[in-house]
Amino acid sequence: MSDGPSASHRLAEVLATGRPALGAWAGLPAAMSCEIMSRAGFDYVCIDMQHGLADYSDAVAMLAAIDLGPATPVVRVPWNEQGIIGRVLDAGAMGVIIPMVNSRMEAEAAVRSCRYAPEGARSFGPTRVAQRDGPGYFAGANQAVKCIPMVETVAALENLDHIVSTPGVDAVYVGPADLSVSLGLPPGNNDGEASFDDALAAIVAACGRHGVVPGIHSTPSLAPARAAQGFRLITVTADNAALSAAVTAHRQSVSDALN
Amino acid sequence: MSDGPSASHRLAEVLATGRPALGAWAGLPAAMSCEIMSRAGFDYVCIDMQHGLADYSDAVAMLAAIDLGPATPVVRVPWNEQGIIGRVLDAGAMGVIIPMVNSRMEAEAAVRSCRYAPEGARSFGPTRVAQRDGPGYFAGANQAVKCIPMVETVAALENLDHIVSTPGVDAVYVGPADLSVSLGLPPGNNDGEASFDDALAAIVAACGRHGVVPGIHSTPSLAPARAAQGFRLITVTADNAALSAAVTAHRQSVSDALN
Amino acid sequence: MSDGPSASHRLAEVLATGRPALGAWAGLPAAMSCEIMSRAGFDYVCIDMQHGLADYSDAVAMLAAIDLGPATPVVRVPWNEQGIIGRVLDAGAMGVIIPMVNSRMEAEAAVRSCRYAPEGARSFGPTRVAQRDGPGYFAGANQAVKCIPMVETVAALENLDHIVSTPGVDAVYVGPADLSVSLGLPPGNNDGEASFDDALAAIVAACGRHGVVPGIHSTPSLAPARAAQGFRLITVTADNAALSAAVTAHRQSVSDALN
Amino acid sequence: MSDGPSASHRLAEVLATGRPALGAWAGLPAAMSCEIMSRAGFDYVCIDMQHGLADYSDAVAMLAAIDLGPATPVVRVPWNEQGIIGRVLDAGAMGVIIPMVNSRMEAEAAVRSCRYAPEGARSFGPTRVAQRDGPGYFAGANQAVKCIPMVETVAALENLDHIVSTPGVDAVYVGPADLSVSLGLPPGNNDGEASFDDALAAIVAACGRHGVVPGIHSTPSLAPARAAQGFRLITVTADNAALSAAVTAHRQSVSDALN
Amino acid sequence: MSDGPSASHRLAEVLATGRPALGAWAGLPAAMSCEIMSRAGFDYVCIDMQHGLADYSDAVAMLAAIDLGPATPVVRVPWNEQGIIGRVLDAGAMGVIIPMVNSRMEAEAAVRSCRYAPEGARSFGPTRVAQRDGPGYFAGANQAVKCIPMVETVAALENLDHIVSTPGVDAVYVGPADLSVSLGLPPGNNDGEASFDDALAAIVAACGRHGVVPGIHSTPSLAPARAAQGFRLITVTADNAALSAAVTAHRQSVSDALN
Amino acid sequence: MSDGPSASHRLAEVLATGRPALGAWAGLPAAMSCEIMSRAGFDYVCIDMQHGLADYSDAVAMLAAIDLGPATPVVRVPWNEQGIIGRVLDAGAMGVIIPMVNSRMEAEAAVRSCRYAPEGARSFGPTRVAQRDGPGYFAGANQAVKCIPMVETVAALENLDHIVSTPGVDAVYVGPADLSVSLGLPPGNNDGEASFDDALAAIVAACGRHGVVPGIHSTPSLAPARAAQGFRLITVTADNAALSAAVTAHRQSVSDALN
Repeated sequence: MSDGPSASHRLAEVLATGRPALGAWAGLPAAMSCEIMSRAGFDYVCIDMQHGLADYSDAVAMLAAIDLGPATPVVRVPWNEQGIIGRVLDAGAMGVIIPMVNSRMEAEAAVRSCRYAPEGARSFGPTRVAQRDGPGYFAGANQAVKCIPMVETVAALENLDHIVSTPGVDAVYVGPADLSVSLGLPPGNNDGEASFDDALAAIVAACGRHGVVPGIHSTPSLAPARAAQGFRLITVTADNAALSAAVTAHRQSVSDALN
Repeated sequence: MSDGPSASHRLAEVLATGRPALGAWAGLPAAMSCEIMSRAGFDYVCIDMQHGLADYSDAVAMLAAIDLGPATPVVRVPWNEQGIIGRVLDAGAMGVIIPMVNSRMEAEAAVRSCRYAPEGARSFGPTRVAQRDGPGYFAGANQAVKCIPMVETVAALENLDHIVSTPGVDAVYVGPADLSVSLGLPPGNNDGEASFDDALAAIVAACGRHGVVPGIHSTPSLAPARAAQGFRLITVTADNAALSAAVTAHRQSVSDALN
Repeated sequence: MSDGPSASHRLAEVLATGRPALGAWAGLPAAMSCEIMSRAGFDYVCIDMQHGLADYSDAVAMLAAIDLGPATPVVRVPWNEQGIIGRVLDAGAMGVIIPMVNSRMEAEAAVRSCRYAPEGARSFGPTRVAQRDGPGYFAGANQAVKCIPMVETVAALENLDHIVSTPGVDAVYVGPADLSVSLGLPPGNNDGEASFDDALAAIVAACGRHGVVPGIHSTPSLAPARAAQGFRLITVTADNAALSAAVTAHRQSVSDALN
Repeated sequence: MSDGPSASHRLAEVLATGRPALGAWAGLPAAMSCEIMSRAGFDYVCIDMQHGLADYSDAVAMLAAIDLGPATPVVRVPWNEQGIIGRVLDAGAMGVIIPMVNSRMEAEAAVRSCRYAPEGARSFGPTRVAQRDGPGYFAGANQAVKCIPMVETVAALENLDHIVSTPGVDAVYVGPADLSVSLGLPPGNNDGEASFDDALAAIVAACGRHGVVPGIHSTPSLAPARAAQGFRLITVTADNAALSAAVTAHRQSVSDALN
Repeated sequence: MSDGPSASHRLAEVLATGRPALGAWAGLPAAMSCEIMSRAGFDYVCIDMQHGLADYSDAVAMLAAIDLGPATPVVRVPWNEQGIIGRVLDAGAMGVIIPMVNSRMEAEAAVRSCRYAPEGARSFGPTRVAQRDGPGYFAGANQAVKCIPMVETVAALENLDHIVSTPGVDAVYVGPADLSVSLGLPPGNNDGEASFDDALAAIVAACGRHGVVPGIHSTPSLAPARAAQGFRLITVTADNAALSAAVTAHRQSVSDALN
Repeated sequence: MSDGPSASHRLAEVLATGRPALGAWAGLPAAMSCEIMSRAGFDYVCIDMQHGLADYSDAVAMLAAIDLGPATPVVRVPWNEQGIIGRVLDAGAMGVIIPMVNSRMEAEAAVRSCRYAPEGARSFGPTRVAQRDGPGYFAGANQAVKCIPMVETVAALENLDHIVSTPGVDAVYVGPADLSVSLGLPPGNNDGEASFDDALAAIVAACGRHGVVPGIHSTPSLAPARAAQGFRLITVTADNAALSAAVTAHRQSVSDALN
């Protein structure tokens, strides 16, 4: 039993250095793929309960699997809802990414779900995480748990400083696909489109003004550019996309060689 | 409801042409990764119940997921045991890879498990597969289901012609790691080692003598050479290995770019 | 990979003809029963996550099972909540039935959850459905996904035109049991009770005024009458009820024959 | 906690009266359908782990569900293998149907798996069943647990008296489909074919000679005839078949009414 | 099939006597541990879906397991949300504990989720519970289901009479850990701290004024004192804590004896 | 990634010292209870796949959970069958307890399943365990994996030296309940019965002659005596029994205090 939640919190350590934290995304509902990614050298692995296929009981097993490697376990919850945020924290998540936070009020609700009183209204009952982190968990949790609202709509851009400056927000996370759709662009990374480029720049700038970490969902090829733009919490790959691309390339390369 | 098991049996169709059938291996216990692989252009996807993590109920969902794409569903069973062979066939597998078949007697047992009387002793009860293939399933099953013993030990090499010539054996499948260990070599592909090279050549030759398809577990880079050696059922990639390699490479490439 | 969500959308095709679409209801948390029902000739199979026993991970497997047959996959979500509506759409549902929509505001919330911007606020991440429908999914989704609020209370009747005329509402779905309870009648079909009959007539009429499909939860014996009343999306049977009735009748008939 | 395994053993009670015991068959891997069938008035519900889709953990939940109604829980195991026979008994099965028992030696193995020493070699560890039946379970188990080998091949017919007379065999169970296939007939009930009719008669006669209960897998319509032939343990319906027939009939009747 | 929900409602019977009802808490997501606790003599077993690890499909199996013994099944839901409250009631819960109810409005929402019209707005669809309780379930449900909001914050204390007097509230349940955190004390039982002691006394007194049962989460050693303070619904143990303490003590006692 | 299987093999380390290794037994199919026990200071935690309720997919999650604490993961397999022994080793078990090994031939089969060639015939494919232990796993596995046949019948006692002296047997494990039943005694610990006492003494003595560790299934109160008798691998508690005893005692103590 360790002496509190910060004992092996690689994501927090990297963020403290100012270097970008690199993460992997878990869309497959499998503990084994999470263990593989946690052992592959990422600073965090994020279980996607919004667009990925993991249900809560899958997520519990996946959080345990991430704990087998050095990566910090993070969860993207399906929605800004206190019940599920509390549950993934109790199961061991040290960061929570909350979709579609579009206003100060929604940002405050996100924080409230992540923090024990007096900073918030998280309910106490660290069933699994206290097994991992011991009795020191409670005292350190409000500091250790990273609350990470997503900024991914035109509405959120309009309320950017209100959101980013909300006390208790540690980082914000950009979903480029949703941001693009909200801007009237096709889902994806629309670098070169002024509205998209401006939005990313505005988010990084707002984070800079308020001492908050700018984060973004990315790809292996785009990640270095994102770091250059100032993002410091960068998801560089996702299991289902990586798997799909790899096996398709494998098949293609063999088919080509045989023809 | 289709008109029998051969309706969309891509593996059988490719084997009939004489061209190599290319497959993907499912070690993760997840339906989604099987659906991804089945839609990625492989001739078959094989669920590994021996060294993979899928249990029977996982396998049932994975077989259904493979059926969503064009690949033929195959299962490697944990052992040469009639109960599990019957169960995966009832759930929709159109091929069964059976580990460590070292003798004529064991090859005959494998066939017996795969075939209804009078060719074998498979028990009748095609619970799920008859939903998929309709009432025509029974009449065509003995022809359509591919019985594929593994030849992967020194003992099997000694009994090679006895195994390969067993009536009802459609193909044999080489596990290079086990073959290597049995030969006193490190697990893996030991091309260049005479005992290993000779074993592969002997297996292909024996298959040629008896009209049986030689198959092998391989990798994207080795697969073309295996085809050149005469193998015609070639697993070119595996989900967990592909995922691990891909995400590790992704992280490394980003880390390198940032340093 | 098909060319978009409308490729095999039997429910949409039938609705376009003006003929009633006939559906089956999945209350058992089993993929096999969904596959059976999808292959049994229904236009849609609806997974009931409100009163049925399926959790999200069950629903993912059941959606895949429905995709094995020709029926269109539909889900009744537990509640009018954006998180779960997005998740079932990402997993492949082409229609969503939303319980207890009692006001224009609630109807608009339901639509918002089902549509990408600018028609709504659905978050982009079609993890499984894009495997099935390909890159064309996004462009067609707002048109293809059927948003189906339930009208099943006195409050909803009072707001009927406001609900039915909400842009983006494709159909409404009557739950006769809840409607009855709200009207002070016993749960069930209360045909012959004026308040119940009038409510159904009012719903069909309102749908007619606004070009919306009237739907209803029904039984094999009542379904023809419902069609005659003007309903065009009619659930005619449910797995658990059908199973219970069938096996009870089987036992009874044998007991009777033996006595 | 009751006072031993015979406390509510409806199957044993009915068999003791000489009247036929009527059962339902569980091929769907769902606890809810088992609870429905157990409450529907059957004397036993049999979980099919051979051709059904239930894995061991499904079976544990299904056994508990059967215990919620009056029916006696029975399991057909995948094969005549001591490990799985012991496991389903520990989880609460009071009868075990064992497939493809073709010889005295195989019948003795089946009995050995079902009985504690000195009658057999069942290993002691009644994890769940002792919760249900209390400390009296051990003393009564060898008497209460019904050992039911299947007689369903030509080989078994040849060894019929040897099998039926094996000490510890309580009943035998005929699988008409496998028996038919073994006889060179199409799978199913082949009443009117002399070889099939003779086989059934021979089995009933052998059971009569040795005080063993003759059992058979049947259908609602055939069951009365089976009782008239002398069978006394008769499965009259199966969940997946009943569901499939019922929902297909429901859809058809509505379609017909609408055209 | 029994004749309604009160048939074996031990919790209701004990509460009617005025004696304290004693309960066990299920944090492990396992049916077996629930069955053990239900058979161990408690008046209720409560499945914790807020801080425990059970997901909905786990809870369904756990509710069935509790039904195997005499204890009344209760569920603490993750949050005051109508969807999940309805789902656990449909699956058989006879009591619902709802976290963090801080106002009259929230208490009324909790009641509304638990009661059919006209007392509330629960949706009708008792899929599993009607199997257990029969057609009488509907008529008795509003009376039989216990609605139990949690009072565990300073805000709730301020609104105490408003909450406790809400029509349809049967009991309130104190979470001492959350109450303590809200009061600025460390999570746990802070007997002797005036603010904590006063809060408990105030809650018991308010319950007395309004004829509502005061309940509390407790421990074996504290439970008698809680009863003396007037609490009448007392959770005396929890599976994961009991297991952890027991096995730790077992190991320690053996280690000590060996040294 | 560590440098091989012995990296954190607490069971092996303790056995090497000559002190008794103390273990906990996992009969509940839950990862959380395994994590609790692994963190509670035991030298090993053994997942019981014979009489416990864990299926293979449960066991995979439970093995990962044990890896979160310092205890060595061990599995008791359902039977002496190569398929399942290989699977639990691939998933990370570092010891395997094999039931009812009654002869030299059966002991040799157990060893063969646990060892790679040339010591045995284990098939190579360390899917999960190689994630944990890295490429060094293969080289060290034959040494690190503990092969532990059970000696628990009169037949095994008769073949005691043949079994214990089998090369590759690291320890034997006594099941007192089965041993008792085989001796004609009631299941349990029958200390004081000469046949039982003599059997334990004979087993310890045989182990001493052949340098094998004598192990036994025990209880907290008996364990010190077992150590004094010479046993050095002692299971001192089991989750389901500990839970049942603890919660029953808790309820009783509160009931007593209230009366």
